[in-house]
Amino acid sequence: MDSQKLSKQFTFLKEIDAMKTILRQNWVIGKSHREDDAEHSWHAAMMAMTFAEYAKPTVHTDRAIKMLLVHDLVEIYAGDSPCFDADVVATQAAREKAAAEKLCALLPDEQADSYRALWEEFDAAETDDAQYAAAIDRLQPLLLNLYTDGASWQGRTVTREQVFRRNALTKQVLPALWPFVEYAVQACYEKGLLAE
Amino acid sequence: MDSQKLSKQFTFLKEIDAMKTILRQNWVIGKSHREDDAEHSWHAAMMAMTFAEYAKPTVHTDRAIKMLLVHDLVEIYAGDSPCFDADVVATQAAREKAAAEKLCALLPDEQADSYRALWEEFDAAETDDAQYAAAIDRLQPLLLNLYTDGASWQGRTVTREQVFRRNALTKQVLPALWPFVEYAVQACYEKGLLAE
Repeated sequence: MDSQKLSKQFTFLKEIDAMKTILRQNWVIGKSHREDDAEHSWHAAMMAMTFAEYAKPTVHTDRAIKMLLVHDLVEIYAGDSPCFDADVVATQAAREKAAAEKLCALLPDEQADSYRALWEEFDAAETDDAQYAAAIDRLQPLLLNLYTDGASWQGRTVTREQVFRRNALTKQVLPALWPFVEYAVQACYEKGLLAE
Repeated sequence: MDSQKLSKQFTFLKEIDAMKTILRQNWVIGKSHREDDAEHSWHAAMMAMTFAEYAKPTVHTDRAIKMLLVHDLVEIYAGDSPCFDADVVATQAAREKAAAEKLCALLPDEQADSYRALWEEFDAAETDDAQYAAAIDRLQPLLLNLYTDGASWQGRTVTREQVFRRNALTKQVLPALWPFVEYAVQACYEKGLLAE
């Protein structure tokens, strides 16, 4: 290909195929395999699309969908950081910032800036769009845990309170979905999957 | 949960988790596993986002991204239909239409209508948005074949001409990307992965 720009974009699109091999703590429903980052990102984007009607009127769900498509790209180099593992979480920000730089360097400059900005906005979770996306990002694993007997919690003690705290954004920015969080946490607690 | 509507939406979002277990003909780069529909849909959405600048000015890439997120949902019930398998392709339309009905029946009526319309628009590939999405949907497996020694073509004879025809929409609606199609087909032909 003649165009250096196009060539960079294809290199980026080849590189991010690795999202299909970055495994998360969650298992897919049916437990055939652990979920990977590409599957999670797709599922979260579908949730953002399906629940658009419950978003604050200021939210641009199309932007939130794009944030969810790119939000885990940094894990290609930084790996998955299980949210209930304090040691891993302590180094997460620095590892992910370095990963974002490395990945964006593959893209043409202008596009690198726009993708980095989208990721940083998601990561900061301060704007309405980012808070909507972040709430969905945390709700999606709860849906999987509800239907996989809490597969991502196994091997560690996770409390009801921790899951409520992890999903606090939903109460704030997507209150219509809070009854699901309460239902899921209660159901998992009653099965003995979550501690008091 | 009190809301019947919300309950339907969560049932739908649980059901579509099955996209992570519908295997395609393609393998992911590195060949650790065959690609599944969720991974493919995410990767195609990323391509639609990354190549937005090359779309016709009439294309709403945000809509095309949403089409790509939902375009393979029908395969949850209808299965993957390999594009070079004439017997399977012959029954594809009827199977997928029935699958769309079954899946949309899970959703609240209004949302069912909007998702069905989006899928039908993609499937007809007549509007500018749908043609953009459909071109990307066909380009994505070519990218994988280029980097997996034509893994999806193995066990059958596929010609250069067939791949060019399969990607004809790109020449028409995304001509800026046509040099990639030519490059990929030529590289695969020289490696003996595509027949004359």
